[in-house]
Amino acid sequence: MKIVIIGGGAAGLGAAGAAKGVDPDAEVVVYTEYEDVAYSPCGIPFVHGKEIDSFDRLFLATKEQYIQSGIDVHYETTVRSIDRAAKTVEVDGEGAVSYDRLVIAAGWNYADPGVPGTDLSGIYEVKNIRRAMEWDVVLDSTKSAVVVEAGAIAMEMVTALVHRGIEVTVVDPGPWPMADVIDPDIVEPVRADWEKLGVKMLWGHKVTELGGGTGALTHVETTDGTIEADLAIIGTHKVPNNPLAMAAGLKLGTTGGLVVDATMQTSDPDIYGAGDCTEIPHGVTMIPLQGLSGSHAYAQGKTAGINAAGGTRDYRPVYVPWGMLAGEWMIGGVSFGETLATALGLEFHSATAQGITRARYYPGVRPITVKLLADPDELRIIGAQMVGGEGIKERADFLAMATRAGITVEQLATMENVYSPAIGALNEPISVAAQNLLASL
Amino acid sequence: MKIVIIGGGAAGLGAAGAAKGVDPDAEVVVYTEYEDVAYSPCGIPFVHGKEIDSFDRLFLATKEQYIQSGIDVHYETTVRSIDRAAKTVEVDGEGAVSYDRLVIAAGWNYADPGVPGTDLSGIYEVKNIRRAMEWDVVLDSTKSAVVVEAGAIAMEMVTALVHRGIEVTVVDPGPWPMADVIDPDIVEPVRADWEKLGVKMLWGHKVTELGGGTGALTHVETTDGTIEADLAIIGTHKVPNNPLAMAAGLKLGTTGGLVVDATMQTSDPDIYGAGDCTEIPHGVTMIPLQGLSGSHAYAQGKTAGINAAGGTRDYRPVYVPWGMLAGEWMIGGVSFGETLATALGLEFHSATAQGITRARYYPGVRPITVKLLADPDELRIIGAQMVGGEGIKERADFLAMATRAGITVEQLATMENVYSPAIGALNEPISVAAQNLLASL
Repeated sequence: MKIVIIGGGAAGLGAAGAAKGVDPDAEVVVYTEYEDVAYSPCGIPFVHGKEIDSFDRLFLATKEQYIQSGIDVHYETTVRSIDRAAKTVEVDGEGAVSYDRLVIAAGWNYADPGVPGTDLSGIYEVKNIRRAMEWDVVLDSTKSAVVVEAGAIAMEMVTALVHRGIEVTVVDPGPWPMADVIDPDIVEPVRADWEKLGVKMLWGHKVTELGGGTGALTHVETTDGTIEADLAIIGTHKVPNNPLAMAAGLKLGTTGGLVVDATMQTSDPDIYGAGDCTEIPHGVTMIPLQGLSGSHAYAQGKTAGINAAGGTRDYRPVYVPWGMLAGEWMIGGVSFGETLATALGLEFHSATAQGITRARYYPGVRPITVKLLADPDELRIIGAQMVGGEGIKERADFLAMATRAGITVEQLATMENVYSPAIGALNEPISVAAQNLLASL
Repeated sequence: MKIVIIGGGAAGLGAAGAAKGVDPDAEVVVYTEYEDVAYSPCGIPFVHGKEIDSFDRLFLATKEQYIQSGIDVHYETTVRSIDRAAKTVEVDGEGAVSYDRLVIAAGWNYADPGVPGTDLSGIYEVKNIRRAMEWDVVLDSTKSAVVVEAGAIAMEMVTALVHRGIEVTVVDPGPWPMADVIDPDIVEPVRADWEKLGVKMLWGHKVTELGGGTGALTHVETTDGTIEADLAIIGTHKVPNNPLAMAAGLKLGTTGGLVVDATMQTSDPDIYGAGDCTEIPHGVTMIPLQGLSGSHAYAQGKTAGINAAGGTRDYRPVYVPWGMLAGEWMIGGVSFGETLATALGLEFHSATAQGITRARYYPGVRPITVKLLADPDELRIIGAQMVGGEGIKERADFLAMATRAGITVEQLATMENVYSPAIGALNEPISVAAQNLLASL
């Protein structure tokens, strides 16, 4: 059994390890265009921001460790095409390489901002760690930066750039940060924080040109005028990296992601997909989603690897708990906020509670806001949005399971909670939000 | 409608406020033996430990606020007896006071340690805030203390005493701290911390006498010899404070707690019970439990108050999420650990996972251990135990709901989780523990 994997990120390496777990004798070959695998790209903004002192700390495993576990990683190696009839991939410098099973874990790219000037120097797409190391040196002498659309990584970069003393302007066509995901009341503390830190924000505006006469960026044209800048951070949304799959005639969905079944099998029974190049149905709406987290990519990769190697595992529709640090705040949620649910035409009831994370007199206590959305018929939880100082990740995980398991507002309104001054307040804001929702009906 | 409430803690005040919410015209009278209501007794150990700078910060509301909300609190006033036939209570200085509905929220006392010398000075039962203010002055000149049994408050006091530079010896008949609640592997990091801090621990030993010739404590006799000490902290378990209820012939259960139905009604339809003087069935075993948290007491009080005032609310069996700070660690859980489940004769499968709370390279990352217990037939979660550096309260709340809702190990093994370096790790330890449990079968 020979399993070829295209992509060395969380999905590709997850698939490789899981395939070896099922079939230790399988030949597992991973192709990556990059110099490295097994590092945490999600950590890059925090090294730029100096929260983490070195890019070296982002590496999870050494190349030697992969060799020892029998996974053959080919670095800086591009796969040019897939020949499904011959069951081969065409690899630069290797020619036609055969496979029994192929796993496509080719990841994502930033959407093209679609404006002139993207070939200038001074334009940074935060993604690859080697490029990040080079850019980190550039940041030392950068005076002012424009963030072109405020996606998740770009939001982390705003804070990082401020920490580096760089003047930052965010230009985003939405009415507030991450308007496709987050409700305005939830993100308001972050926006206010940024304002206090001197970040300039142009909401509802677009970048129209990346400008610079001599090959290097000097200014950014927007629908609100010109901004002097020696750096532009591309923060557009993720798009699936699927030119190979498309050329091979594999079925792609409405998001551009590979369509996969519960085993992560594509429209070709010998080819699996995993991670950001696939699309996965949402558990409530069954609408396909693309561009989830590294944790999703890893779980999908494991599922693909297990099935590719002859094992059995199903991946399931997703409810998408998410969360991140944004300035001094943690924001997060599950599935939908009010904005997205409304845009999707979903009917819902919602209610919000303000709470605190510890006893109000205990050091380190932080505010927390929880908003719950429930379907109007059975009052089952369908989404949540949160902003606070701690405990956002854990609550998002909880509420994602609540959504999946069909937990009702009534159940959350009567939930028990830990009360101990140093670690939790008398009233749990999830429960209070549920009580408020019931009271509002 | 006149509602009389005995007790001014979380249960009593919860009942008073909820009764007023249902029937604003109700006459609501609260009797308390103490000088204050509406403070957080749970915060006392942390003021002693200097994490919180003043006892004043523990007060939640002023006496004026209760007057304004129409709740008539009688301070330092003892209720001597209940005459159920006449529907009156006999109150010191007031004589027979009639009621339409009575709520007993009389709370708890430390179990009598059952040894000679409890009348000596130098013996501190951590409970009332006025006494705590006085004892806090005493702590300034205290050299060495013995903690007589390591209940939850006593465990917090160990840390507090160490923070005050006091030499501490813990004497407890159990084989490790809180052995009736916590498993040894979970509490081991706490024990190791205490050892590092110089705390002496006599596990499996009993105090046999509190000794002192001149009326003040000078030493403590134990089954392992004599300990010089000028302070003893009583840390025995909570017992329901029910002499009034017993004298009135109300039905008490095996724990000594008032037996109540789902509306918190006692065996007398005009009398309700709430808080630590009641017993509540456990959701899995239906075994009655007593001595839960302030959060439970408050929710029970609200239920009792609502029903006493003519409204309708049910309280339900409990799954008891719990948690606390212990040294540098947070410990917590839901329902049972292996020790208690085994003692109760429950059959279960269990598995443990070691994890981390953030990306391993992110500042502030802490280890976390999660143990899950599941019933052997359907693999539904029946209990959990945890120790870690952060996120214990939120996970305990989650797993308490999981236990109540019948969530299975398979569901937790495939749960989604937030991955973002600053707030959550790639792998959620709850999920890994569930995966480990499935793998062990």
